[in-house]
Amino acid sequence: MDTFSIDKLAILGPGLLGGSLCLAAREKGLARTVALWGRRESVLREAEQGNFADHITGDVATAVEGADLVVLCTPVGVMPDLLSRAGPHLKSDAVVTDVGSVKAQIVREATAALGGRGLFVGSHPMAGSEQSGLFSARANLFDGAVCIVTPTAETAGQAANLVRAFWRAVGCHTADLDPQLHDETVALVSHVPHLLAALLVNFVCSQAGCPTQFAGTGLRDTTRVASGPVDMWREILTLNRLPIASALRTLSGEIQRAAAILEAGDENALQQLLEKAKQQRDHQIAKIPGAHPAVSKEGNE
Amino acid sequence: MDTFSIDKLAILGPGLLGGSLCLAAREKGLARTVALWGRRESVLREAEQGNFADHITGDVATAVEGADLVVLCTPVGVMPDLLSRAGPHLKSDAVVTDVGSVKAQIVREATAALGGRGLFVGSHPMAGSEQSGLFSARANLFDGAVCIVTPTAETAGQAANLVRAFWRAVGCHTADLDPQLHDETVALVSHVPHLLAALLVNFVCSQAGCPTQFAGTGLRDTTRVASGPVDMWREILTLNRLPIASALRTLSGEIQRAAAILEAGDENALQQLLEKAKQQRDHQIAKIPGAHPAVSKEGNE
Repeated sequence: MDTFSIDKLAILGPGLLGGSLCLAAREKGLARTVALWGRRESVLREAEQGNFADHITGDVATAVEGADLVVLCTPVGVMPDLLSRAGPHLKSDAVVTDVGSVKAQIVREATAALGGRGLFVGSHPMAGSEQSGLFSARANLFDGAVCIVTPTAETAGQAANLVRAFWRAVGCHTADLDPQLHDETVALVSHVPHLLAALLVNFVCSQAGCPTQFAGTGLRDTTRVASGPVDMWREILTLNRLPIASALRTLSGEIQRAAAILEAGDENALQQLLEKAKQQRDHQIAKIPGAHPAVSKEGNE
Repeated sequence: MDTFSIDKLAILGPGLLGGSLCLAAREKGLARTVALWGRRESVLREAEQGNFADHITGDVATAVEGADLVVLCTPVGVMPDLLSRAGPHLKSDAVVTDVGSVKAQIVREATAALGGRGLFVGSHPMAGSEQSGLFSARANLFDGAVCIVTPTAETAGQAANLVRAFWRAVGCHTADLDPQLHDETVALVSHVPHLLAALLVNFVCSQAGCPTQFAGTGLRDTTRVASGPVDMWREILTLNRLPIASALRTLSGEIQRAAAILEAGDENALQQLLEKAKQQRDHQIAKIPGAHPAVSKEGNE
């Protein structure tokens, strides 16, 4: 494995992902200097107390000056403005990436904002938690997770290589997807499961006096993601709303078909449905790595 | 807290729940003798090797003879036959309970099978795992879980008391529900989430070449229960099929409504939906205890 090493890494946005990147970068020695930019004074002070970076600042220019790699870790809606403020202070060969959960729009806007030099590369590490904020950050958040990298025909090859190498160095596997295909894919594997968990909570709580006192770990774990940060998820789901809506319409039809199977008492069809799901989950989903303290901390194993 | 102590406890069915009850009963000293009955020779030998009980036998009569409390831990479909075989060998004041996930039918049949003495009390501990079998058993499986107890007007009060005390002694909280109300309630908090997880797996895997290689822990955890034992779940879902189908029809309508919110780009409605879900999950669902090694074992926390 080749070692990743740059002179200066700038992380913009001191949340769960930005904070975890700082910790991972320092633990693994990925940059001589790690700079962290944040907007709020109180969070910057927390970052200082936790010794998250070498330079912690509220000034974008200072943070990105001389940086070889800049990672945007703010909410997606803030990124265009942040990029236009950072742009004039970037080294001419600085590579910029982000961690946004929706890619087509930000890749288009950021590529344009950087003047078509091809040095913006979209990224989406499939790591996170229903917990948020700097103090949920941990150096091993990315271990074993997949990070989707979304270069386009306009992207400079060496910029894409640097970004892939960065994600591998913090612990991810990487996979390339076209930005639009990324958005359609994560609608399926992330955004629909998220919204479905929220709808399941609201549904259970709207029936029979909200009988959650009778629930076990099944309901807890199938709805874990519904505890995620609301503002962030509203933004993600809105940005990617059409692929998600289309998937929900199809899934709703599948649920109606399952209801019909039950109403008909068709045990064969039910058996097939459950067998297919178990087989696919066991082989393709069960082994996705990453612990969730909120799910696991109650036990001692 | 009053201590629970009986002379003989008989566990019929050496699976995850039966095995865990044996381990919990022995660890906590709940009975002078614990007997375990099973059908398959190979499993009985496993139980002997693991020292799960004082008496391990393939003979129902021997297992239940002299028992103060008999717990049926087999699949629900097997219970009526098992009870008719055990019946003649029960002490006249033996109390019988079960761990079945559906209650109205088994309570009706078992109450009749025991000759109307009111000594059958339905139970449903909300503990389990997507893993199954004796070697997934653990003494702490029930710690902090709710166990729903379903006495009826025909149930002898002291039988219900003994069963409640037993579940508390193995680590559960108990809550009483009428058997029919139990079935409608668990349709909401357990059976619908289970089927929804299976449908989500099948849906994701039916789209775009099954892009699970791009998934994170959200998809893994929201679908955990879909890895559960197929035969057991087909039986449960079939026994409780009408309340589940009815709930699925309503939920499907909610999903259509969410799709319409996205199609309209109605951020306010989306925000409200997510906020309500987060609040309800954080306060009423997140704290359900019980670790799941399959979810948590990948990490070190």
